[in-house]
Amino acid sequence: MRSTAGNAELALLLEVASTPKPGNVDRHREYPDLRFEHFLAGAVGAREGLAAATDASVGLGEAFRRAVEGMADQRGGNTQFGAVLLLVPLVRAAATDECSPAAATRMVEETTVEDAANFYRAFEYVDVAVRDPPEGMEPLDVRRGADAVEHLRDRSITLAEVMELAAGRDGVAAEWTGGFERTFRAGTVIADGEGPVPDRAAETYLWLLSREPDTFVATNHGQRVAHSVMVRAQEAREGGPDLVEAFAESLVEDGINPGTTADVTAGGLFVALERDGIDV
Amino acid sequence: MRSTAGNAELALLLEVASTPKPGNVDRHREYPDLRFEHFLAGAVGAREGLAAATDASVGLGEAFRRAVEGMADQRGGNTQFGAVLLLVPLVRAAATDECSPAAATRMVEETTVEDAANFYRAFEYVDVAVRDPPEGMEPLDVRRGADAVEHLRDRSITLAEVMELAAGRDGVAAEWTGGFERTFRAGTVIADGEGPVPDRAAETYLWLLSREPDTFVATNHGQRVAHSVMVRAQEAREGGPDLVEAFAESLVEDGINPGTTADVTAGGLFVALERDGIDV
Repeated sequence: MRSTAGNAELALLLEVASTPKPGNVDRHREYPDLRFEHFLAGAVGAREGLAAATDASVGLGEAFRRAVEGMADQRGGNTQFGAVLLLVPLVRAAATDECSPAAATRMVEETTVEDAANFYRAFEYVDVAVRDPPEGMEPLDVRRGADAVEHLRDRSITLAEVMELAAGRDGVAAEWTGGFERTFRAGTVIADGEGPVPDRAAETYLWLLSREPDTFVATNHGQRVAHSVMVRAQEAREGGPDLVEAFAESLVEDGINPGTTADVTAGGLFVALERDGIDV
Repeated sequence: MRSTAGNAELALLLEVASTPKPGNVDRHREYPDLRFEHFLAGAVGAREGLAAATDASVGLGEAFRRAVEGMADQRGGNTQFGAVLLLVPLVRAAATDECSPAAATRMVEETTVEDAANFYRAFEYVDVAVRDPPEGMEPLDVRRGADAVEHLRDRSITLAEVMELAAGRDGVAAEWTGGFERTFRAGTVIADGEGPVPDRAAETYLWLLSREPDTFVATNHGQRVAHSVMVRAQEAREGGPDLVEAFAESLVEDGINPGTTADVTAGGLFVALERDGIDV
């Protein structure tokens, strides 16, 4: 039987193998400097940190930091930062309690200032696109990396509180603070689906994208673009495969990458593998 | 830095991601019941056994048995049996000595009767296509699985000796007993190449296929077909991408799978990652 860390790594691999996933790298679409194999190496590299997340004696932030350090050991840069961030509390919940929204939320609530410090340290390994912090929050800008740690300590800010501060503008943080609602719903949709798992994941991705504006698109291109992508995702779903392909091509042309929706899809795949025990 | 077991798992993933690889599943070609994701799950499942291979206190045969048990935890059946068999002594050599033909050969020479027993037990997890054993060797038919173990013990046959017996008709066994010559040459070709690693691996696969008849093709379709595939691989290489695609289509149509050549490609990828430290 596959281990919990194995299911998490496989979720990352199945996510990138799922096609078509408009705007994201998949088995059939890649960019010259962000290629399919970078995601394979990213998933393999994250494995050790994901395994550390199953060990309650390792801090959740430290497990995340290690997973990102390993993930970054390839030439594509940031491949799965958000997905790994989403997976870590789910992995810990599954390994030490159960794979449920309540247990995952408990893992979030138990995070410490040291977890927050390691979360910030993880930004030193890769460039992650983020928005400017709200006014007055500049000392907590994640782009400061380890330099923000002293400020976290002075104010006794836990990782759960960091996520609260970011939840309004980051979809992964919103999952952390909102009971992982979309992640678990995605898991149910994938588990209840039929046919090859990557096909179910691709359909789930498009469904998620059609329901809420992707925060990574909003960060990089603004709210209006994120909203328009959401509407077009729904049109593509209703229009069928040809429209989905055309939508995918147009997102690539415009350099629009709904990365948060891919992260939630990876989280949903983990839930389907771990909680529902779906066969691949 | 990626662990040795991580490099072995990544080699399995890069192998199946490499395209076009005529006659084998790759990122763009799969069969209804043997799909790309089965290889992803196979690689993830093999990881624990590959990690066991880095631990000198675990028998090499036991590490292999565990890797196959994990690999088999997906619905596609035999995805990477031969590749895992090729990787296990290379992984042990790299982790406990060095990634070289001499060290890998020492690992082979140190195998015991118990290693042979675990090799046979591994056949219980998946159906592996093999040829009838030579006359008088029926008690050692691998298809007997664990039932052959008593016979191995009575005759004190080590895993190295099992491989000697099979080397004439199985390309992976021939690597075990022949200093892993093709595997290390493939590693050098991949490491010396340019461009994305999967492209280099696909070229190396076609080069290997054009040089020696694939023993898995010979097992399933006879020597004449294996020889003809070898000649056509060379014609495809000389003819360019369109001819390679046409060759790939024709192998799929005829159900011809040069699986041993894919195994050696996976071994070569491991050597390039581990010995040469190529970046992905």
